[in-house]
Amino acid sequence: MARKTINVGLVGTKFMGRAHSNAYVSAPKFFGLKADVVLKAVCGRDRDAAKAFAAQWGWERVETDWQALVARDDVDLVDISTPNNLHKPIAVAAAKAGKHVVCEKPLAMNATEAQEMVEAVEAAGVVNTVCHNYRRLPAVALAKQMIDAGELGELYHFRGVYLQDWIASKEFPLVWRLREELAGSGAHGDLNAHLIDLALWLVGPIAEVAGMMKTFVPERPMPDGTGTGKVTVDDAAAFLARFEGGAVGTFEATRFAVGRKNGQRFEINGSRGSIVFELERLNELGFYDNTDPAGRHGFRLIHATDPAHPYVGAYWPPGHNVGYEHSFINTVADVVNGIVDGTDVHPTFADGLATQTVLDTVERSAASGRWVAL
Amino acid sequence: MARKTINVGLVGTKFMGRAHSNAYVSAPKFFGLKADVVLKAVCGRDRDAAKAFAAQWGWERVETDWQALVARDDVDLVDISTPNNLHKPIAVAAAKAGKHVVCEKPLAMNATEAQEMVEAVEAAGVVNTVCHNYRRLPAVALAKQMIDAGELGELYHFRGVYLQDWIASKEFPLVWRLREELAGSGAHGDLNAHLIDLALWLVGPIAEVAGMMKTFVPERPMPDGTGTGKVTVDDAAAFLARFEGGAVGTFEATRFAVGRKNGQRFEINGSRGSIVFELERLNELGFYDNTDPAGRHGFRLIHATDPAHPYVGAYWPPGHNVGYEHSFINTVADVVNGIVDGTDVHPTFADGLATQTVLDTVERSAASGRWVAL
Amino acid sequence: MARKTINVGLVGTKFMGRAHSNAYVSAPKFFGLKADVVLKAVCGRDRDAAKAFAAQWGWERVETDWQALVARDDVDLVDISTPNNLHKPIAVAAAKAGKHVVCEKPLAMNATEAQEMVEAVEAAGVVNTVCHNYRRLPAVALAKQMIDAGELGELYHFRGVYLQDWIASKEFPLVWRLREELAGSGAHGDLNAHLIDLALWLVGPIAEVAGMMKTFVPERPMPDGTGTGKVTVDDAAAFLARFEGGAVGTFEATRFAVGRKNGQRFEINGSRGSIVFELERLNELGFYDNTDPAGRHGFRLIHATDPAHPYVGAYWPPGHNVGYEHSFINTVADVVNGIVDGTDVHPTFADGLATQTVLDTVERSAASGRWVAL
Amino acid sequence: MARKTINVGLVGTKFMGRAHSNAYVSAPKFFGLKADVVLKAVCGRDRDAAKAFAAQWGWERVETDWQALVARDDVDLVDISTPNNLHKPIAVAAAKAGKHVVCEKPLAMNATEAQEMVEAVEAAGVVNTVCHNYRRLPAVALAKQMIDAGELGELYHFRGVYLQDWIASKEFPLVWRLREELAGSGAHGDLNAHLIDLALWLVGPIAEVAGMMKTFVPERPMPDGTGTGKVTVDDAAAFLARFEGGAVGTFEATRFAVGRKNGQRFEINGSRGSIVFELERLNELGFYDNTDPAGRHGFRLIHATDPAHPYVGAYWPPGHNVGYEHSFINTVADVVNGIVDGTDVHPTFADGLATQTVLDTVERSAASGRWVAL
Repeated sequence: MARKTINVGLVGTKFMGRAHSNAYVSAPKFFGLKADVVLKAVCGRDRDAAKAFAAQWGWERVETDWQALVARDDVDLVDISTPNNLHKPIAVAAAKAGKHVVCEKPLAMNATEAQEMVEAVEAAGVVNTVCHNYRRLPAVALAKQMIDAGELGELYHFRGVYLQDWIASKEFPLVWRLREELAGSGAHGDLNAHLIDLALWLVGPIAEVAGMMKTFVPERPMPDGTGTGKVTVDDAAAFLARFEGGAVGTFEATRFAVGRKNGQRFEINGSRGSIVFELERLNELGFYDNTDPAGRHGFRLIHATDPAHPYVGAYWPPGHNVGYEHSFINTVADVVNGIVDGTDVHPTFADGLATQTVLDTVERSAASGRWVAL
Repeated sequence: MARKTINVGLVGTKFMGRAHSNAYVSAPKFFGLKADVVLKAVCGRDRDAAKAFAAQWGWERVETDWQALVARDDVDLVDISTPNNLHKPIAVAAAKAGKHVVCEKPLAMNATEAQEMVEAVEAAGVVNTVCHNYRRLPAVALAKQMIDAGELGELYHFRGVYLQDWIASKEFPLVWRLREELAGSGAHGDLNAHLIDLALWLVGPIAEVAGMMKTFVPERPMPDGTGTGKVTVDDAAAFLARFEGGAVGTFEATRFAVGRKNGQRFEINGSRGSIVFELERLNELGFYDNTDPAGRHGFRLIHATDPAHPYVGAYWPPGHNVGYEHSFINTVADVVNGIVDGTDVHPTFADGLATQTVLDTVERSAASGRWVAL
Repeated sequence: MARKTINVGLVGTKFMGRAHSNAYVSAPKFFGLKADVVLKAVCGRDRDAAKAFAAQWGWERVETDWQALVARDDVDLVDISTPNNLHKPIAVAAAKAGKHVVCEKPLAMNATEAQEMVEAVEAAGVVNTVCHNYRRLPAVALAKQMIDAGELGELYHFRGVYLQDWIASKEFPLVWRLREELAGSGAHGDLNAHLIDLALWLVGPIAEVAGMMKTFVPERPMPDGTGTGKVTVDDAAAFLARFEGGAVGTFEATRFAVGRKNGQRFEINGSRGSIVFELERLNELGFYDNTDPAGRHGFRLIHATDPAHPYVGAYWPPGHNVGYEHSFINTVADVVNGIVDGTDVHPTFADGLATQTVLDTVERSAASGRWVAL
Repeated sequence: MARKTINVGLVGTKFMGRAHSNAYVSAPKFFGLKADVVLKAVCGRDRDAAKAFAAQWGWERVETDWQALVARDDVDLVDISTPNNLHKPIAVAAAKAGKHVVCEKPLAMNATEAQEMVEAVEAAGVVNTVCHNYRRLPAVALAKQMIDAGELGELYHFRGVYLQDWIASKEFPLVWRLREELAGSGAHGDLNAHLIDLALWLVGPIAEVAGMMKTFVPERPMPDGTGTGKVTVDDAAAFLARFEGGAVGTFEATRFAVGRKNGQRFEINGSRGSIVFELERLNELGFYDNTDPAGRHGFRLIHATDPAHPYVGAYWPPGHNVGYEHSFINTVADVVNGIVDGTDVHPTFADGLATQTVLDTVERSAASGRWVAL
């Protein structure tokens, strides 16, 4: 059988556009993929910038209109790395055009949009994946293996924080991420989305939540210097949760934790053991094994760079770190193989909808001052 | 003027009785106190056990009835290290008898009791202190100094957890701490009480809370082997909070975090900097100084064992750790000097009432499923 | 002026061949380089394996004889990623053919060879670099900036260890790295070479050394199963050093530190401050600033992922880790720009000779049981 | 049989005098000792200071001449907490007077003195102990148990540093510890003595050493302001060692590691596992178990505060730290019980002599520039 080629069309040329481009370049080199990957076309609104980006990363063609990109016959997979307000229209159009879709997180502006996206991709029967890239860091994927194997036993607690500080200065301008019409929400959709995705994946469905949202700085300078504008999203968002399986959870996201740059941390406690992960030390997984002999208990620091750990075989020998970008490279590897095999590539849009539903429910809880069931 | 002597009467001979006894022995040796301290009498219900305890720690007399101890003319200060249900009756009686009072935390079974205790000590005009000992670890006292000096700027976040695992096994028996009539509450009153006290002291008053309480194991073996009994307190309790000053907070206490033994950790983020403290590394305070020069930022690990740090001058040279028990020794030092000087020794019973009020309000919130204002 | 193209010829397709290939692919994408990079030809002894490697990584041509690769007119830069015994012949031939040369470390089998290599590249006037890749991790490059700026003051101590454990099992076979005729030495040339390079760069020239070498397992199974063979290199090597500038140093390399996978760690103490680096947490630099105010001293953890830090601007936002491979990507970026600019790219072969001379002197010291001056 | 009383006479009222006094007070309280302990007499040259010290710590009598103290009939145990030059005369006199002897480390000014001391105590048949207190930190005592139980397997490496910075400033005065006639040596005898004691205890006898000593600041202000004086000891000392059992070791002590206050750290690597200890986190022992299953390896952080750990049962529940001073309390407990039982209390003077011999041999090696066998 002839070896397949997957032609990729990317929308977006900023932070995520770079991270995804690098992944399409690198995944075929580190992994023995089941198909070839071609960087066929990239779309950015500014043609010159898009051309420069294409030249830098090796994209063959440039579009300035995402509809044109989606319409291209020579594109098999559409990658949506745009601001959140464009996720739905692009994804729905791509699915209707029969393209596989990879979409940045959060999946949508709200659950209604997400629902529409799920229906579109399921109707089209295309591979669909939300880019919750942290699932595919070796240490996190290892945590999943351990939980599935029962190494933590019955689960009691999920405890997650995602702490950043990039807008803590009151002088920081009103960028798109601080405007509800473009971003949907603030730290909540940006950061809690990651924690929720991990919690749903690792612990299971959430039954009810009680939330709190906070905007510390309500007005900020406009990026173009034209006075100030209103911040319409949360600076911080926290919530309590009860999982269907009996565990309880705490979640917190903020952009005002001065000193924390990419401070994602989660801990899961179960009857047989506990795990703890910190994103700024992403090669490590803390593991407490409650079955260790008396007097020899302790959190052990698993350096998840061993061939026995997920994805690591594609890279370097034990003790040699991978970085942030490898989460995307691993995602692309799974997406490419999933397309060839015709299998789901988690987290699917349905998984993204579940996360979006929790996000929305937390917002409703915060607005009502009550616990709200999902 | 003649040097004063303070005669201490202690009620309780278990964990806290030992910790307090050691503090009364050691404080006069490490510190140059303003009065002499005499271990006058100790009270325990089992006379033989109390006598053995007295011999071990140097208490001159033994009582088996706390009312007898409180009635002694030769006792100036009553120290209440009993289960929680006895705090109020002993404290009120001691105050009425004109004794100074040190009481273990939480101050009472509920805010109503605490209110009564405050009124008693204030009417009597005696020194009154709740033993929230962690305030007086050098690293924590340093945090207070820094916040008061404005080194963290405007405060945005308090984030506290207190994680233990000593009842995680379902075979663990139904001890007094798991019975509401003796303990008031479970992890909540035992552990969140510490976090709340620290939060009120370091960040300020709390305006409203939303809480969640959870009992994972509802039935446990009786300690005497006579079948099983119902657990009537929480195994875990978490809550969200809004502070009056604008900061937001998350709090979590549990006895089901397998692998965490005395896992208290709190972090405070402000506009000028952040601090982080972990009880299992109690000599250290993490400090992020947002005014450090570009490219030189980072959480620094202050080893709070320098003469420049609170209480440290009484002990050892830089780099030489103190332990858990020093929090009690420092407390006794401040209590003794406070009695001589006639000054308040924080946290007073009024402070303890404030903590108790937050505890109660969280319970009401958890029961009602709503945010509740204080 | 026309934009320049640099055609690369790589010798070696194993661990280092992969790391270098990735760097040639990625450097032009992350950085705005001054020339284009073409992966022109790769050389491996097994033609099929080399062809597969070339297909994977994008090398245009395959050679099986390094002399053929060096002789190619269309190669501008020869990259030597072979076992150590081939470094000298390839480098000398490449220089004579007028090619720029990048050579893996250690530069040579001994200082005599290294001297010959230096003479060859200097006679040819080609750019020449030894791949001591760790110099170009952002955290290490930051350390260099800080030392050069006087932030550590007068230097007193260098303290380096490089701990691994991959041959600690007695069943591990007699691979090429354990045979003197192919590797020159064991842990010493492999691992101490890195430490020495860093020490010479960061602290300055070494005046004299006293060394010790140890082989714990003198006989091992042959890789092909044909009985056992003699280990002819060291399993561990340690030495003391006096630097010309007055500092003193300790160095240790081993492959028998069970649990340490890539455990490089170094600390430098000076009058104004200290730095500490650990390779398994390669995004971090510990920094103690002796000019911090009293009571606020502590090692701060600089997460070297800020735009203010070297090389970081090419990658991701603050808090987003880079990995091991970025040390090579950064090296390629500097080599490419250095070739265009006609400037030295440190560490040059002369620097590699200096490291080799220390390595050799330590061996002589260990053999003689005496301090030996350089 | 009547319960025994041990009357203690202490010589020295400075840092060690305080630490030992506290231990004699506290040990009988925390432990159920086999004899009563009486703080009978303390000796200090300044009578007023000694009286104040005695009042503070509870010593019954004061002497200003150590010979008078040793001569007292009512003293059973002489504790020598003086500068090093007085260790020998006091110990020999005490032994001749039939007193048990506890002596601060290093045992003597040199091995010749130490030999004389060993002979004196052995001739007298008295209990004799050098106060290498770190042996009795729970985490270190646990390490010993583990090694003795074979949990580390065959030992390959000992790697110890003891880093301080208290004299790094050139303005620091010429105190007694910087004068050879009073201290014997500098960082070497003060700090390497601890490392050597631990290495001999945990790994076994040392066969040969190669050393280096360094004085960074040769002249310092006199403490009394009368000009400057010559520093006659080392500021830093490092050495390599070969153990008789086949392991190799590195040792380093310095008072110039800016930022390190009490930075003792040692690591031992064996075929079955490794341990690592850091004095500034003295409740923790790192342990790598090489028999853990594939993919689950990692250094685990044993918080040595469990009843399963040595000495811990005398103190607090799991997770509650002990401090520096507990090493002395545990020592006193063992000494008292040893006296009653008539058993050796390690490290004996013979063990101290072994350490002293290594210290001396390192000095000879440093002077000669050669490896020297013991």
